Amino acid sequence: MALNAQYDAIGKGFVQQYYTLFDDPAQRPNLANMYNVETSFMTFEGVQLQGAVKIMEKLNGLSFQKIGRLITSVDSQPMYDGGVLINVLGRLQTDEDQPHAYFQTFVLKPIGTSFYVEHDMFRLALHDV
Amino acid sequence: MALNAQYDAIGKGFVQQYYTLFDDPAQRPNLANMYNVETSFMTFEGVQLQGAVKIMEKLNGLSFQKIGRLITSVDSQPMYDGGVLINVLGRLQTDEDQPHAYFQTFVLKPIGTSFYVEHDMFRLALHDV
Repeated sequence: MALNAQYDAIGKGFVQQYYTLFDDPAQRPNLANMYNVETSFMTFEGVQLQGAVKIMEKLNGLSFQKIGRLITSVDSQPMYDGGVLINVLGRLQTDEDQPHAYFQTFVLKPIGTSFYVEHDMFRLALHDV
Repeated sequence: MALNAQYDAIGKGFVQQYYTLFDDPAQRPNLANMYNVETSFMTFEGVQLQGAVKIMEKLNGLSFQKIGRLITSVDSQPMYDGGVLINVLGRLQTDEDQPHAYFQTFVLKPIGTSFYVEHDMFRLALHDV
């Protein structure tokens, strides 16, 4: 499959759509539609999960209610199977915690005219900076 | 191609090998062997480059001499083409600058019994934290 020339718009559009759902506890369960039931991988703060059910158990189990999010950068690259690699750098503030830098990587796989998340990695940048 | 069960060891081994070359200005030009002449993508602080020649122009042109590097975490996932997705979170100090958090993502593609870097993204986490 060819490189998708729209990779940059796809990456930015996906990130906006994903975090709109993620940051609203009422809508967060709808993220299930973005993962494959069996094949999708997530690594959340070093813990690896596979499949939409386990991934959503993790995401729905996050205890904070309020999320403040600032996106610093979204880098995207086209992949040779028609997918898109996306890296997000941002800052995240949950409830009354202080803000932390974080980064998140997504690999989108094409399915028909749409995409699903085949790979997802999330890390807070907790350093003694 | 099947998932590579050794993905975690491959990821950690690759990161060690890559940064050993990167952090020594005398050895850095040897990183050229890790990229494909035509297909490899790099996004370095938001600037996208394609192919080993342009990538190495960028890496060999970096002006700092001393690099202090601390790796905080290496997350790896197996990919369905036999490749490995790797995310590195660390701290980087160049010359007399203050240390900065950074993250770097690699997608390794299998070629025979080895791998090359198909995708590489690098970002310093420069926030007003």
